[in-house]
This record gives sequence, structure tokens and C-alpha cells, in this order.
Amino acid sequence: MASGDSIDGIELVESFSKMNNEDELKGDRGSESEEEGKTKPRGITPLDMTAAAAVNSSGPKTPTSITRHKSERERKIGHRRVGVGGEITYKKIQTTQIMGSIQLGIQHAVGGLASKPERDLLMQDFMTVETTNFPSEGSNHTPAHHYSEFRFRTYAPIAFRYFRDLFGIQPDDFLISMCSSPLIELSNPGASGSIFYLTEDDEFIIKTVQHKEGEFLQKLLPGYYMNLNQNPRTLLPKFFGLYCYQCNSKNVRLVAMNNLLPSYVKMHQKYDLKGSTYKRKASKSERQKNSPTYKDLDFIEYHPEGIGLEADTYTALVKTIQRDCRVLESFKIMDYSLLVGIHNLDLAVREKAERRSNQGSRRLDTDGEDGEGVAVSGEERDRAAAAALNRSRSINRQRLVAHSTAMESIQAESEPIDEEDDVPPGGIPARSSKGERLLLYVGIIDILQSYRLKKKLEHTWKAMIHDGVSNTVL
Amino acid sequence: MASGDSIDGIELVESFSKMNNEDELKGDRGSESEEEGKTKPRGITPLDMTAAAAVNSSGPKTPTSITRHKSERERKIGHRRVGVGGEITYKKIQTTQIMGSIQLGIQHAVGGLASKPERDLLMQDFMTVETTNFPSEGSNHTPAHHYSEFRFRTYAPIAFRYFRDLFGIQPDDFLISMCSSPLIELSNPGASGSIFYLTEDDEFIIKTVQHKEGEFLQKLLPGYYMNLNQNPRTLLPKFFGLYCYQCNSKNVRLVAMNNLLPSYVKMHQKYDLKGSTYKRKASKSERQKNSPTYKDLDFIEYHPEGIGLEADTYTALVKTIQRDCRVLESFKIMDYSLLVGIHNLDLAVREKAERRSNQGSRRLDTDGEDGEGVAVSGEERDRAAAAALNRSRSINRQRLVAHSTAMESIQAESEPIDEEDDVPPGGIPARSSKGERLLLYVGIIDILQSYRLKKKLEHTWKAMIHDGVSNTVL
Repeated sequence: MASGDSIDGIELVESFSKMNNEDELKGDRGSESEEEGKTKPRGITPLDMTAAAAVNSSGPKTPTSITRHKSERERKIGHRRVGVGGEITYKKIQTTQIMGSIQLGIQHAVGGLASKPERDLLMQDFMTVETTNFPSEGSNHTPAHHYSEFRFRTYAPIAFRYFRDLFGIQPDDFLISMCSSPLIELSNPGASGSIFYLTEDDEFIIKTVQHKEGEFLQKLLPGYYMNLNQNPRTLLPKFFGLYCYQCNSKNVRLVAMNNLLPSYVKMHQKYDLKGSTYKRKASKSERQKNSPTYKDLDFIEYHPEGIGLEADTYTALVKTIQRDCRVLESFKIMDYSLLVGIHNLDLAVREKAERRSNQGSRRLDTDGEDGEGVAVSGEERDRAAAAALNRSRSINRQRLVAHSTAMESIQAESEPIDEEDDVPPGGIPARSSKGERLLLYVGIIDILQSYRLKKKLEHTWKAMIHDGVSNTVL
Repeated sequence: MASGDSIDGIELVESFSKMNNEDELKGDRGSESEEEGKTKPRGITPLDMTAAAAVNSSGPKTPTSITRHKSERERKIGHRRVGVGGEITYKKIQTTQIMGSIQLGIQHAVGGLASKPERDLLMQDFMTVETTNFPSEGSNHTPAHHYSEFRFRTYAPIAFRYFRDLFGIQPDDFLISMCSSPLIELSNPGASGSIFYLTEDDEFIIKTVQHKEGEFLQKLLPGYYMNLNQNPRTLLPKFFGLYCYQCNSKNVRLVAMNNLLPSYVKMHQKYDLKGSTYKRKASKSERQKNSPTYKDLDFIEYHPEGIGLEADTYTALVKTIQRDCRVLESFKIMDYSLLVGIHNLDLAVREKAERRSNQGSRRLDTDGEDGEGVAVSGEERDRAAAAALNRSRSINRQRLVAHSTAMESIQAESEPIDEEDDVPPGGIPARSSKGERLLLYVGIIDILQSYRLKKKLEHTWKAMIHDGVSNTVL
């Protein structure tokens, strides 16, 4: 998979900002105020596979990401624009171009690491930056491509290799996930206009981050290393790479992370919890979406008696959150959220039966359709879920990233909630107050965002989720 | 053992230097030029145990450290002075007072940690400083004492607790080693006038360090943590504490470390190797001492064909040195040395036989006598060695610090060189070119000293020590 092992420059920088003095700082920070109406990635934009297959097979495949939109006017959140024709740009660069270029960049960066022998990680490895130029006509160590000429920066390559290794990700597997298939752009951007790309195998998310966020991640790396070493079971985001794609004097910074919410599992409810009740209600427009992200006050409304967990699971979850919060607190990170995706197993069974009874009419099932773009349909999800179940139950093909499911992250050892075949793996078993069987997909998100308000996630979260011992529901 | 759990202040400082602006910087750095005639700690000053036993039993025991000297004039190296009456001072503070006070300080600091639950180590733990005042009349949480009032600073207490824990040192064991018996002052100071204290159980060394060295150790801690995590088998110094004793506006900084050269094993030769031949010959005055520390050129002279190691041992040693050198290089540490103590087993057998044949005359054996002060005699060493052998062979009483012997540090698995009872444990088995059985006690020292000259320890060391495979001696 390695396209070459040479790079144009290795630099050791004191801080991210010194590297990027040509940066459009103002533009990067300008979107900080657009907080309301914040949402999480949800639906998936289907690919035009014909176009992707037509691309020269020597480089990574190029996806098309023109999504179908309900309105044709240009919309902009942060740096993300949806044009009149539906095409998406980030900092006025076509997202298709970004996707294809970063795949070339990652392929070169990860491939080039193969020639560097495994060795102990050193402090200076957190500060290294490698830069490679990708002229369109190709060079001695970069392939020709049909995008604009660009420069690709890989931050702390040895450190991120170490992190990937900690999570059992083999270099070849990472390359295949990242580069062998076109990326899928999630149709719903973050509040600050971040773009989310999902790898086709559902393992990794690549997210655009602001200048300050990238800078902060770099500073965070030594402490992040310490946490992973002492505490590999963590709900904190798992970072696998930090990159900067530079084109036309624009910088697009990207982090590669684990994917918290498997797309083959339907999330019947999603919550972004901060442990605060001040202005923590999903906006009217968010609620009108097909798969809205609710907030703390909505959780209290929908689950006034909380969600029931088994005693052991509850203890493991609270312990993990406590350890993680201590790390966040030590870095004065305050504005993070707990993302909770709830899959309702009983509801899923009813939905499946309903779909089967409707199959005679061959009507397109719309239960998965999204406010923007088209999400995975119920039928597609059934097929994907079956495939994922097979995969996760196979000895030869475990989930790629170790300790990455919610259940593994909290190191709980509860028995599966049910032995039926249609239980998706990895979720934390729980019960609603009505006794419905739930699976929770949880993770701490948005830890790179700047300080806004002191929040107390841990305590309120404790109050929301009941201990099974004292909860009569269980 | 805990004398209290409260401290007068916890501070988080950006750097060591900000804390110590009242410091006598000039004096601290003034001794940097006194490099020639550099020696290592050798002999041991015997204690006046009567005086020690007379001290109030509630506090740590107070030793006397007046050594017998061949000349009565006042001598000074760095901050260390030997007065006309033989009394030793450091920055004009009686060394007896320093010893007793730091035992009180360490007892309070380590005892106070007992109330702090074990938790993950955080980045900020490397920067914490705790300060406690010790008025002579005692306070709510400090005992009364008969020394001058002093202030005791403990740097990064949680981080050093973590390091001690990594090496399997239980808090109670550390307290007993450090505080329950008087410290023993080594009679031969370092080149810069450092004072070395040895704990009575031979496990730990407490060494005075200069202002810059303490500051550097603080900066080094995150990288030191990384190395210990990835590489617990290391020849680098093992740091177990960093303290500052403040009295009369003087700062005495101290590091607690592992003891490289067990005092019950006679070192027939000692080398301070830097991998350079420029000015690397022991001075005339050093050679006249009873147990001189030789240098690189002396090694080449005495061991022109090198020292033979078994192939596996050689590989393990070189691998360990390579990993350690990479860490040192990453911190631009250049002036370290490899300390090599050589115990000649065959010579030791002859010496023992000789001592026995001389026992009729009851003559004081002087083979261990030192240039300065009086070292351990051959007979005392025999008894101590027997006790140490018993201890190290007992299942219940292992050596206190895990992975701390030279043999354990390089993770070699060679068989003991001989099954005889009088083989001291922990040394690396080797052979001289004449076929004599040797035990090597090795460790990397002086890593906190400031940059002086780029040295290439590793390569020259490789050239000096032969690989057993290619060495016909083995």
C-alpha cells in the first residue's frame, strides 16, 4: 500500500501556530459563536459508485459527494457551504477534492512509516511535523493526480502510529480502511461547520477541526499518551491522526478518530449531554429532523425516571467517566459532551416486522430518511447489521479498533442483554423505565473545543442514569 | 509511619526557577568548572551509633558524620566543605543537620501521601510542589525537632509515588529505608561537591544536586515517565524523589535514587566511561587513592582486549544502552557516563583466604581503606555480603527496588557465572581476557549535568566490551 517512503521535510516545531502563520486565523475562529442548533453527524450520503470506479486505480478512489437537497439555495455553517447545485465546499474547496487529496496524503504518510522501525516513543515525537508536496504531475515519491496541487502535513506521525498500535490497528489495515475505498461524507455537519468523513468499513471518522483545536490536540498529546497508557479503557475520543491539507493558501486541518455510532445500528434517540440544564433543549428546527440530537432537558423529559443499568455496568460506566473527567479537568477542558445513542431493541423488532409486512407493496421505506440528504434505509440497515454481526462474531475478523465499542470502553463484563441473533454488538445493555431493552452507544466528544462554560458532566450524568441496585425497573 | 497528612502549601509552578528566585544562583553554578579530578562515591563513613541512639525516638534518628581525615586543613569542593575539626558542611549547613531534617521532611511528605488515594498520573502532577514548614517547636502536623527551623519542598510527589510504585517500592518500605535509620554519608564527594547519603539498608542514595540539575529533572519528568512505561528495564538512574531543604535562605536540593554499587560487594576496579579518549585518564591524585575511579584511557590500558560477555548478555546490554541513549539524545543530554564497577570473583576468593590466614594476628585489615575517611573493611564486607546473599535468596525478602540490579536492568537471562555461595547477586557475569570470573555493576550516571561536550558513549562502549561469540576468551 505504501506509495513511497520519502517526505519533503521533517520539522520540529514548538507549537502548531508557528507553523501556520500564513493561516486565515480570523476565518478559522469566526465560527465560534454559531453554537445554537448544534447537531451531530447522522445520515450517510450514498455514493455514485460508477464515478468512483472510473478513477485511475493507482491512486485512492475518488468519491462523488453531491447530495440531494430539499432546497437549492446556498447554505453556510462555518467554513462549510452547500452550493446552489448541491455541491459541498469547505473553505471554498470542493469536498470531493479534499477527500481524494487527504487519502493520497494519508496513504503516503502511513506508507512512509513502514520504513521507520518500531522504537520507543519520545517526547519530541509529539512535536514533529512532516510535510509533503503533491504536484498534480506527480514527483519522485508522490503519484500523479487530477486534483489541484497541494501540500500535506502529518503531525506527530510516530506518536499516532504508537496510538494506533495501542488500539491494535495494523498499519496495513489502517491504510485499507482509510484509502482503498472512497470516503463517505456525513450529510449533517457539526455546529461549527465541521465536515465528517466516514470510512466505508464504518471504523473511522475524519473530521475537520479549527486551527485552535488542532493546536490544542498537539499540546494535549503527552497527557493523552499518559491517559492511554494508564487507562486504555476510556470513553474519550480515540485520535489516530492529525493532518493538514494545504491548497490555494487554505489550511484544512483534520483528525482521524474512532466512529462512535455504528451506522448499521439504528439510533432511535440521540443525546448530546453536558450535565447542565441551561439552554440545553434541542431547537425547534432540530426536533423537526428525522433523527434529531436531543439535549439534557429533552433527556429529562423523555426519561424522567432515567435509564436502568445493571449494577456492575453502572459502576464500570461511572468509574470510566470519573477517570476520563479527571483527565479533562486537568487540561481545563470544560465544554465536552457525552454523546449517547440509544438503540431500542424492542422497537427495532416491531419495526422489522412492520417492514416485512410492507414488502409486498415495494414501497421505499423512509424510516431512516434524514432532514438533509438521504440516510441508510431500514432494509439496507438490516443487511449491514447482519454483516456486522457476522463480522464481529468471527474469530478471524474482529472489529478493527480494540477497546473501541462502548461496552469495551467501560470494561464491563455483563452478559449480553439477550441471546437473539439480531442484537447488534458493542452497545451497553440497559432498560428504559418501561422495561424496554436498550443498547447505549456512548462516548465523550468535542474535547478539543475552546473553553466556554464550566459544566459538570459527571454529577448530572450520575443523577440521570440509575444504578440497577436501587432501580426497581431492573 | 506517617507523621501527618497536611502540608502548608501546594503550588503548581511553570518551572523550578520561578519557585526559587531567592536562590543563590551564582553559588550554585559556580562549581561547574571543577571537573578534573572527578570521583565517584566510594568508601562509607562509619557512624557513631551511640550518639544516634541517644536521639528522641519520635523523630528520625540523627547520625553523626564526623569522619577521620588525614589532614586537618579546611577543604572545599563546590558547596561541600570539610572543616578544621573534620565536620562536613554543605552551603555552610552542618551535614548532620541536613540529614536529620530531610528525614523529617521525607517522612512527612511520604506519610502525607497515604491519605491521597491512588489515581491516574496527570501531566500537571509533574509540576506540583508541596511546601511544609518545620518550626523547631513543632506544629499541628510537624513534630518538634532540635534542628534549625526549615522549610521542605517536595517536587511532583504524586509522580514520584507513581515511579516508586513502578519499581515495586511500597510506601512503608520506602519510609523505613529512608527514615527509620540514620543515613550514612559517603566520604567521597562528587566532582561538583555533591554530598551522597546512603540509606542503611543499602537501597537508596540521596544526592545533592545543583539548581540547574533539579530544574532539568523537573523538565525531564514527562519524558522520563514515557521511558519507564515503555522500557522499565533501563540502565538510566532511577529517580524516586526530588526535594528542596531550605534553611537560613539556603536551598539544598536533593534527589533520591537507586544505589548502583552495593557496598557489600568489593569493587576491585571502577570506571567512569564516556566513550571518549580526550583527557579521559584518571588524575595522579585519583590513582593514589585506595579505590580510584578510572576513566576510558585507563580501561583501554588495563583491558586492552576488553571484557568478555556471553553473547546473549552482550546483546541485552547493548540493546538496553541503545534504548537509553536514544532517550538521552532526545533530551540533548551528552555528558553522562557509564559507571562500571568490577568485582573480580577469583581475586575475592584469594583475598578471603589471605584474610583468614592473617586472622591469628588480629591485624586490622586495610584493603578497603579509602583515601578519605575509613571505608568498610574486608571482614565487615564478608559479613554484609553473607547477609545480603541470605536476603536476596529469601523468598520473603527480595531486593526492595525491582529491576534495579545491573543484571535485571538489561533483562538478560544468563545463568549465574558460578553456583558457589559467595557470588554476590545482581552483577552481570563476565570474564577478563585472562579468564578471571568478573561481575559487572553498571549504570548510566550524571544525566542531569549540563551540556559540555558531545560524547559517543554507545559506540566506544561497544568497541570496549567484546561480544562473546567473536571473543576467543570465552
